[in-house]
Amino acid sequence: MRSVFLEEIDAESYANYLAQSHATVIIPAGATEQHGPHMPLGVDAMLSRAIAGAVATRLGALVAPTLAYGYKSQPRSGGGNHRIGTTSLSGATVTGQVEDISRSFMGQGFNNVVILNGHFENYQFIYEGLEIAVGRARESGSEARAMLLSYWDFVDEGTLERVFPDGFLGWDIEHGGVLETSLMLLLHPEKVDMSRALSHPPAQLKPYDIFPEDPARTPDSGCLSSPVGASAERGQLLLDAVVNGVARAIEAEYSLPVAALEVK
Amino acid sequence: MRSVFLEEIDAESYANYLAQSHATVIIPAGATEQHGPHMPLGVDAMLSRAIAGAVATRLGALVAPTLAYGYKSQPRSGGGNHRIGTTSLSGATVTGQVEDISRSFMGQGFNNVVILNGHFENYQFIYEGLEIAVGRARESGSEARAMLLSYWDFVDEGTLERVFPDGFLGWDIEHGGVLETSLMLLLHPEKVDMSRALSHPPAQLKPYDIFPEDPARTPDSGCLSSPVGASAERGQLLLDAVVNGVARAIEAEYSLPVAALEVK
Amino acid sequence: MRSVFLEEIDAESYANYLAQSHATVIIPAGATEQHGPHMPLGVDAMLSRAIAGAVATRLGALVAPTLAYGYKSQPRSGGGNHRIGTTSLSGATVTGQVEDISRSFMGQGFNNVVILNGHFENYQFIYEGLEIAVGRARESGSEARAMLLSYWDFVDEGTLERVFPDGFLGWDIEHGGVLETSLMLLLHPEKVDMSRALSHPPAQLKPYDIFPEDPARTPDSGCLSSPVGASAERGQLLLDAVVNGVARAIEAEYSLPVAALEVK
Amino acid sequence: MRSVFLEEIDAESYANYLAQSHATVIIPAGATEQHGPHMPLGVDAMLSRAIAGAVATRLGALVAPTLAYGYKSQPRSGGGNHRIGTTSLSGATVTGQVEDISRSFMGQGFNNVVILNGHFENYQFIYEGLEIAVGRARESGSEARAMLLSYWDFVDEGTLERVFPDGFLGWDIEHGGVLETSLMLLLHPEKVDMSRALSHPPAQLKPYDIFPEDPARTPDSGCLSSPVGASAERGQLLLDAVVNGVARAIEAEYSLPVAALEVK
Amino acid sequence: MRSVFLEEIDAESYANYLAQSHATVIIPAGATEQHGPHMPLGVDAMLSRAIAGAVATRLGALVAPTLAYGYKSQPRSGGGNHRIGTTSLSGATVTGQVEDISRSFMGQGFNNVVILNGHFENYQFIYEGLEIAVGRARESGSEARAMLLSYWDFVDEGTLERVFPDGFLGWDIEHGGVLETSLMLLLHPEKVDMSRALSHPPAQLKPYDIFPEDPARTPDSGCLSSPVGASAERGQLLLDAVVNGVARAIEAEYSLPVAALEVK
Amino acid sequence: MRSVFLEEIDAESYANYLAQSHATVIIPAGATEQHGPHMPLGVDAMLSRAIAGAVATRLGALVAPTLAYGYKSQPRSGGGNHRIGTTSLSGATVTGQVEDISRSFMGQGFNNVVILNGHFENYQFIYEGLEIAVGRARESGSEARAMLLSYWDFVDEGTLERVFPDGFLGWDIEHGGVLETSLMLLLHPEKVDMSRALSHPPAQLKPYDIFPEDPARTPDSGCLSSPVGASAERGQLLLDAVVNGVARAIEAEYSLPVAALEVK
Repeated sequence: MRSVFLEEIDAESYANYLAQSHATVIIPAGATEQHGPHMPLGVDAMLSRAIAGAVATRLGALVAPTLAYGYKSQPRSGGGNHRIGTTSLSGATVTGQVEDISRSFMGQGFNNVVILNGHFENYQFIYEGLEIAVGRARESGSEARAMLLSYWDFVDEGTLERVFPDGFLGWDIEHGGVLETSLMLLLHPEKVDMSRALSHPPAQLKPYDIFPEDPARTPDSGCLSSPVGASAERGQLLLDAVVNGVARAIEAEYSLPVAALEVK
Repeated sequence: MRSVFLEEIDAESYANYLAQSHATVIIPAGATEQHGPHMPLGVDAMLSRAIAGAVATRLGALVAPTLAYGYKSQPRSGGGNHRIGTTSLSGATVTGQVEDISRSFMGQGFNNVVILNGHFENYQFIYEGLEIAVGRARESGSEARAMLLSYWDFVDEGTLERVFPDGFLGWDIEHGGVLETSLMLLLHPEKVDMSRALSHPPAQLKPYDIFPEDPARTPDSGCLSSPVGASAERGQLLLDAVVNGVARAIEAEYSLPVAALEVK
Repeated sequence: MRSVFLEEIDAESYANYLAQSHATVIIPAGATEQHGPHMPLGVDAMLSRAIAGAVATRLGALVAPTLAYGYKSQPRSGGGNHRIGTTSLSGATVTGQVEDISRSFMGQGFNNVVILNGHFENYQFIYEGLEIAVGRARESGSEARAMLLSYWDFVDEGTLERVFPDGFLGWDIEHGGVLETSLMLLLHPEKVDMSRALSHPPAQLKPYDIFPEDPARTPDSGCLSSPVGASAERGQLLLDAVVNGVARAIEAEYSLPVAALEVK
Repeated sequence: MRSVFLEEIDAESYANYLAQSHATVIIPAGATEQHGPHMPLGVDAMLSRAIAGAVATRLGALVAPTLAYGYKSQPRSGGGNHRIGTTSLSGATVTGQVEDISRSFMGQGFNNVVILNGHFENYQFIYEGLEIAVGRARESGSEARAMLLSYWDFVDEGTLERVFPDGFLGWDIEHGGVLETSLMLLLHPEKVDMSRALSHPPAQLKPYDIFPEDPARTPDSGCLSSPVGASAERGQLLLDAVVNGVARAIEAEYSLPVAALEVK
Repeated sequence: MRSVFLEEIDAESYANYLAQSHATVIIPAGATEQHGPHMPLGVDAMLSRAIAGAVATRLGALVAPTLAYGYKSQPRSGGGNHRIGTTSLSGATVTGQVEDISRSFMGQGFNNVVILNGHFENYQFIYEGLEIAVGRARESGSEARAMLLSYWDFVDEGTLERVFPDGFLGWDIEHGGVLETSLMLLLHPEKVDMSRALSHPPAQLKPYDIFPEDPARTPDSGCLSSPVGASAERGQLLLDAVVNGVARAIEAEYSLPVAALEVK
Repeated sequence: MRSVFLEEIDAESYANYLAQSHATVIIPAGATEQHGPHMPLGVDAMLSRAIAGAVATRLGALVAPTLAYGYKSQPRSGGGNHRIGTTSLSGATVTGQVEDISRSFMGQGFNNVVILNGHFENYQFIYEGLEIAVGRARESGSEARAMLLSYWDFVDEGTLERVFPDGFLGWDIEHGGVLETSLMLLLHPEKVDMSRALSHPPAQLKPYDIFPEDPARTPDSGCLSSPVGASAERGQLLLDAVVNGVARAIEAEYSLPVAALEVK
């Protein structure tokens, strides 16, 4: 019954883990969102969970159940909420989830909470949830603290150059493109069908949003750039950069005595 | 890329499925809650997801990502929210999740939504979410409808007698007891450690709740009755009863032309 | 100006009462809901208020104004919210009422708050309100505590056998049936017209809910079982069981020095 | 089973009433608030209910259960929320109650809803609830409409002169004073104890509010003016003016064919 | 960079000001609401800001950015929310704004917060926001306090007699009338066009509200009384009365050592 | 009484404007946030208002009153909400404001709503507000649509090269730096004191957020990069790029017959 995923361990083991002074919980935040014809709807949830698992293994942290639904997909980062296959939450619910879950973990004794985000649109609503949760915990005398990060923000320049030898076009169009597809080919290859990956030019994003959404703004594939060129090897480069970066950041912020943390 | 779990299929396959006139989505609702020293924290989420999967396979429905966190555990049904290992949502967030997700599915075209609940405490807050979601959908001219059920309500008398040959003591104490443990032994045997299952008399539940909770009300094990006697065989009896009952109910309410429903 | 109903006493008498160390307030929670052609819409409010009054008299507690509207009637317990005569609150409002009123009483100095529920559908939304109110009171250093109960949960087996000599069919169908009608015949006989009581078999409840409601699920009378057989005598048996049980429970939880409590 | 108070009539009679084209429901809105040593805490609820009953009798309308708790008492109109005996709701809950109940009545078929307010502090929060409820009803094609009034706004100049022969000092100080006490002496004389009525000069109200409240601003009695001089005769003058005025206003706005409205 | 308007000063000057023990911030609350053909939509925002500025100059306080939108205009005080040109907030948003901004100022160290209201309909929703904000600040050990006032409540009898030599008809009809127009002619003469001021009798206000609003209740001009007779001279009388009264009230409540307060 | 700022025009002129088929309203969204010792707290509100005014003049649109408070300042874009001088709203209030105001404009007849954002942290909460407002308007049959943009997203590469001849370091550090300072020097030169502008290296932003904030992450000045090098000339380059870009985008999306739009 040893696992870094807390839903897989029993309450006694969990309580023993939590009794350690630097116990840390990482909550992956994903979405249910179309990612083109070659990848499944759960990409954001799968990637954030897998990366959280790798980081937790490195650090001796626990991973909480993934937030499997995210804030409404936006055309400039996820193709838009009008696309079939995208099932979303309102901002208030995303914030409420984060506030409730964070406070619940802090109430049990976790002083180190991390949310590892894998869906761009979530960030600000999660931020608000953590801001409220930590604020209220502190009012009650708790020492709890929290971190919030999106995993792609830990891909360094060197890795970008190796993954995109022809030039990186920006994070905004990396929806269903080389980044996510490479990571999926590494972590969940059986859920990717590269024979259905379409080659098309990157979306020409406009610098503003309109309501209701204009479906013509999103490429037919639902991807904002083509996944052609994705590979498990590139996925490994990306994963290494992300896991190293995230683990080092958590270690530094929470002064983790890594060796001491273990789920027995 | 064929699966009844929609997070594992691509948007194109999903859209094809949804184009069928009787497309049906089942949303499992679980919790993250202590279930004694012999079972993992994710029991409610795992069971509701597995049962939803079995029902969906039978009916040709799709299963949505599981709601992995639930309403606060209550002493009279789940041991209480004060137990370490139990991480919960407020009522407003449970209701908000259900409202948002249901409306999102209905907005994409699903007229048949089912929530399959696996955590007692969730029921009323999910009910409110569905009531609001269907009410608002209908105001906009939608034909959408929804069902809500807790899986154990489909265990018939005959099955109960076979699973509890010494007499069934009531659903309220079936937290971490023979019912859930038997289903886990059948569906996720590697996540159960019967060597840690404690034998103790059932909890003597009082007919009221107090705030703050009194930890002395809950047996030390966290289970409201002993899991001793649980077995995969009994799990099979329970699962058969539940899957048959739930599938028949959905079929009847939604007049499903079962053969026509298929994820290609 | 002596009364156990606090709306009937003046502020000075109330303040004197509250100055006693074990001052206790009981808040009845009812509903405005059809109860068949033989009983008025206010049954749940009337019964919870009358029972609270009897308990308060026994204990020297005060009764707060009744919550006269309740959460939406559900087909499996109250006939459904679509029935004419049923006027309901959303879950958020029920929770908000309870949170506000409980915090208001606690803020004045009441450390012992009880909610006595008379409408099944209310329970979880009241629970959430008390959970939040007591949690917030405790954060501010208060010693306040609360109890929540539904009165019928205090009817013991012996009483059930005497009231239902032909066998008790379960609480779920006791909407507008023998239980409520007997209590009304005892407590508010002038508001019951047994000549309009219909004889019909109990409702065959399905083990799930659908949205929108199916009116065909509820018997035409609006009662889930027939009130035929109800009598004031049976009402007395029920009332005695309930008042004794509830009073003993409150006494035990709040260690009430009963004699000391008096509204002067 | 005939009554203008709908909680006292059965669902069938209620449905028959509602089937009439000009069915009208009046919802009294009160408070639980200290009213000095000579009057009970429920004055606002009792008066709004009694006045609603008299108006309903005149018009053939129904009276809904009273909203027994109101918005926080304010020092400049009710003595302040810090006074012992005053138990209040937040603004959001008052608004939510009104929105839910009004929509529930409109959903059943009531096109004529009236809220008769008896607690100054409620007015704006009820206004917001009605504004939202009618707005949403209209979006769904309903013809429903609503009225909101505070009963004292129907006391005409002539009546004021007769009730306050020495000059009327303004509605703001009429908390626990001659107006309310006279009406109580008429309508609920057994709940008034004039031997405890204190004689003191009217409160000198400041033209602003401060937070937290300054208890010194409110006279010790809790009344903003002395009730000395109140009498049932003056109560009759006030009641006549109010009932006549309110009835005429409802009649005019809703074009009520008065004779046709009857609870059978 | 010296100004009493805090949006015009830099963070360092602001911090220096705040370091003084009696630092006071005044938040003007206005609306965007039609005020007849002779005055602009921003009257309530402009007047509350200008008066706050004059008071702040007198006291050495700072003025926060004006709340430029207010609660829905009501027919009996502002002509109604149906009038073109009136753009409004819900009650919850008004309350939320006040709660957030007040807590933000208190969190930075302001113990003296004042809200100076210029739109009748706002008052109760602002009151609720301050009540919540101060309540929560106090729970966390803060000494913060707040004041709430509407500027017209400081116009004394003597001034009224001079401004309305023919008799004052009541504050309720002073929407777009002599009071506001005179103040605008004094403070923002270039934004008033008296050639478009219409002469008409005062609105005959009914003593209740209806939903939806009846446009016929509001004079065509949108003013509840005619502005004819307004002048800058009368505006000066009004301004002097208001500024003197408000400044004295703040000084008294907050015991301001006026000379010490200065924005350097 | 001609102005593009609607608070400065009267209701009649406003109604005439709105009667034109392509009437368009632009709502500037700012913040009250420290911007270093050389600039005032209102920079974001002032710039968004000024830019909206220039765009509106070009297009014949109206500008609504500015949202003067914004979502909590974040360390990675605005220095952080802990900085003295920063006064902020919660996410729910920002969303509520936008929803209310947008629906209010749409309800009056505006089919073209634009929000021009000048505070990075606002974007997602405004997005949610518009998404809800347009969704609800459409449910009621409205043709209303909305646009959302942040003005800096319209600065083109060519302009960037001219404004930052030594290389542009990214938008994230442009808080209180050359961009905002140049625009202020052009638009509000009297509110900038370049003698207090500090020269320091750009903030080294970490790729994640922590709660509570770490004040050491933000440069002492409160600026994320030095404003040294800012000039009115550079401000003009930026303003031209922004106004041209924004005006062209609105024109294109709303097919504005520009000449026809005029505030008379």
